Amino acid sequence: MQTSKPPWTGCGASKEITGCRFTLSVMADDYVDQILGAIGRVNTENVWSHTDALSTTYRGRRIHVVDAARAVFVHSNDRKTHITMEATFSKGCPGDMDADSYLAHDDTLSNPRQAGFDVRSKIAFYPLGVADYMEHIAHVANMAVKRGLYQNASHYASELAGDVNVLFDYFNDVLAYAEAHIDHYVLQATLSVNSPTKQ
Amino acid sequence: MQTSKPPWTGCGASKEITGCRFTLSVMADDYVDQILGAIGRVNTENVWSHTDALSTTYRGRRIHVVDAARAVFVHSNDRKTHITMEATFSKGCPGDMDADSYLAHDDTLSNPRQAGFDVRSKIAFYPLGVADYMEHIAHVANMAVKRGLYQNASHYASELAGDVNVLFDYFNDVLAYAEAHIDHYVLQATLSVNSPTKQ
Repeated sequence: MQTSKPPWTGCGASKEITGCRFTLSVMADDYVDQILGAIGRVNTENVWSHTDALSTTYRGRRIHVVDAARAVFVHSNDRKTHITMEATFSKGCPGDMDADSYLAHDDTLSNPRQAGFDVRSKIAFYPLGVADYMEHIAHVANMAVKRGLYQNASHYASELAGDVNVLFDYFNDVLAYAEAHIDHYVLQATLSVNSPTKQ
Repeated sequence: MQTSKPPWTGCGASKEITGCRFTLSVMADDYVDQILGAIGRVNTENVWSHTDALSTTYRGRRIHVVDAARAVFVHSNDRKTHITMEATFSKGCPGDMDADSYLAHDDTLSNPRQAGFDVRSKIAFYPLGVADYMEHIAHVANMAVKRGLYQNASHYASELAGDVNVLFDYFNDVLAYAEAHIDHYVLQATLSVNSPTKQ
């Protein structure tokens, strides 16, 4: 490999910025209203928020980013339409920057917790730049086992199932674990509700 | 961190198995027919294939896995419905196994290349277990720049746009580069067609 100049300009954030970039897919003819409606109902006062053609990104303190991501998924669910959400949670990229973020001053969540519902999910956890990454991955998988979320290992992901609030609490706790142990990491998740395929 | 026994049983594949696990989301009321129709039209004679409630997984030799993934996305596109595909390409996980794979004997692709169309994509490349991972990521981003696919860096992903065949050729070449330089890696991509949002 030859070292080459990267096509980005960021050289690391000095602030404690966690991010979530997600693509919400609603399997119905009126998907535009459902997607924009769900995004519009999230209280984003505690995060930086940006929507582009492919995704929406929240950046800020971990608990507020997870809170906003949870809220958009909960708001999207009309309890009948099949919906998927592909979400990348991440922190610590050496190419990151301090811009495009908002760090709230306290821990008071801005999106009230709603009634739960069952979600199916696949997740993969990627600690970057460390040789002992498989031990961190095993730890994170075992955290899901302990909470009753873990269904089975499968190729390239762990399959989880459970209540939406338990699942997002788990995401928050995985990110808190990662924050304490790893400089740069990614938690990649796909969530699904109201699938006609039962297993 | 305490070392704990992982909840999976694989301890590494001895075969050269690349995989792609993807979730296809079709934003229309008749999404079931469109998704199953697209998956059903792929010639999978050169890969191992499995569909579960959340995803379909192809495993085999790199070029055949990319060929099958390209075919399913091309077959899904009716040139009007907004469709997203979230795909994880990966090789070399220490928790992998030789089972659930098919290694074809030659390089003859089983899915004829179709006419192209414009795709918008975001990608992230994750080399695991190596300290110089950012250099590999920069190399892969620059490969996209050279092919005219690279739109801009953005948080947690590189944004790409271009013809579907050029894009999947790029995926194949990224995975070939990775195969030559890194033991374990993940290429995470989200693809989108026929979005009503123009940029």
